[in-house]
Amino acid sequence: MHVLLVYAHPEPRSLNGSLRNFSVGRLEGAGHVVRVSDLYAMKWKASLDAGDSTARQADARFDPSLDSRRAFESGLQSRDIALEQDKLLWADALILQFPLWWFSMPAILKGWVERVYAYGFAYGVGEHSDARWGDRYGEGTLAGKRAMLVVTAGGWESHYGPRGINGPIDDVLFPIQHGILYYPGFDVLPPFVIYRTSRIDEARFSGICDALGRRLDDLWKTPPIPFRPQNAGAYEIPALTLRPDVSPEQSGFAAHIGQEATGAPVSGLP
Amino acid sequence: MHVLLVYAHPEPRSLNGSLRNFSVGRLEGAGHVVRVSDLYAMKWKASLDAGDSTARQADARFDPSLDSRRAFESGLQSRDIALEQDKLLWADALILQFPLWWFSMPAILKGWVERVYAYGFAYGVGEHSDARWGDRYGEGTLAGKRAMLVVTAGGWESHYGPRGINGPIDDVLFPIQHGILYYPGFDVLPPFVIYRTSRIDEARFSGICDALGRRLDDLWKTPPIPFRPQNAGAYEIPALTLRPDVSPEQSGFAAHIGQEATGAPVSGLP
Repeated sequence: MHVLLVYAHPEPRSLNGSLRNFSVGRLEGAGHVVRVSDLYAMKWKASLDAGDSTARQADARFDPSLDSRRAFESGLQSRDIALEQDKLLWADALILQFPLWWFSMPAILKGWVERVYAYGFAYGVGEHSDARWGDRYGEGTLAGKRAMLVVTAGGWESHYGPRGINGPIDDVLFPIQHGILYYPGFDVLPPFVIYRTSRIDEARFSGICDALGRRLDDLWKTPPIPFRPQNAGAYEIPALTLRPDVSPEQSGFAAHIGQEATGAPVSGLP
Repeated sequence: MHVLLVYAHPEPRSLNGSLRNFSVGRLEGAGHVVRVSDLYAMKWKASLDAGDSTARQADARFDPSLDSRRAFESGLQSRDIALEQDKLLWADALILQFPLWWFSMPAILKGWVERVYAYGFAYGVGEHSDARWGDRYGEGTLAGKRAMLVVTAGGWESHYGPRGINGPIDDVLFPIQHGILYYPGFDVLPPFVIYRTSRIDEARFSGICDALGRRLDDLWKTPPIPFRPQNAGAYEIPALTLRPDVSPEQSGFAAHIGQEATGAPVSGLP
């Protein structure tokens, strides 16, 4: 299978760098073909702007969505954007690996999402009307592919627990897992999260690699998070709220996860 | 009073540009002194990297936290970072204004947070031990100041409702309001959110300005979101989970909001 690893850490001689190297080796050892987008090494341009289209009038008003649509449809996207889209189309699975900075992905990776996720590619796909709200949340260009986060965090696991001060890790990651990965169609696997990164000795690193290795071995077997597809009946359209009869007692992020999965819960570390 | 408006939109001739101009005028008209950090106009460097310190050995291993600490303590930060820190210290109130892109702030603004929020300035402040977990979440360098988000979103308000497909807006914004603003000490006011930005005519724009104007007039009167302070007894230290007797039935983001506030709920639009 083809795996794209998008990696965002500025220092190769870091825990993240070591884990990136481990993952590439493990996946290649299992016979997969791996490509790495090392955003810092590529000097990835983080800020979405008018320069992302190669053919604009200098004084034209810039509209992030409409300019993206025009450039995508007419083949006038900046070359770095088109190359990353090609990698996504090539991949059977996407891994986003990054340190959790201020409870989200690093800016350079956020900018990869904003620029690569063009209108017509990752959003604005399919029929948009008051009866059908596009191919998204379970449908879309990247449907049929799998995605997984590999995240390092300085805080303790308890700080990200159900009543931990930073908020539960599943909720902290929801805007990424649901809003960025599930949105254009990916099946999203449970994340692999490493906590308390300042206290990692040889033994702990070895244990982390064992656990991560198993997750990579099971990339095509692990049941995805059962997010609810938008267009399969659970939501009223165009309000896009859950129908009153769907988990009527629930609200918030967790309400968008159904009970359909049969697999046991999968945790990041044993 | 002094207001710092950090603004992240690439096109001045946009809804965001118009609202920025409106806000500056309204605040100045009320006698406040306003400074604007227009990140796109400033060509703000979004990606945190080794270049953020002016005195590094070229071959030294880069550690985002330790390098930030060293540069901050020794006055060797990149000048653009130090200037923004000075603006934050000068300000009595901070407004972050941005379009919601992929359920978070634009990369250029995320990069402002990552680079300006240095170790020793916005985190790593105060005593860190197993008995006390630093001055953060309600304490810290920016305590006593107020902060508010002004956010535009393409989706409908119902899409961000309690059972809306994108998740409730308060939860979508929690990593920013709690994790980025409350963390270094800000009192965080309820956000001002504008939905369905592609459908704004003159009449609606006028109504938005009226509502935003009232929020700006009330910047020092609006009750902040009653996030729970870390070091006032609600949390076990060092686990940093809510004590069993504090809202025992609650978990998730909402558990970190207490019931102490006496003011009525404040909504973005009437």
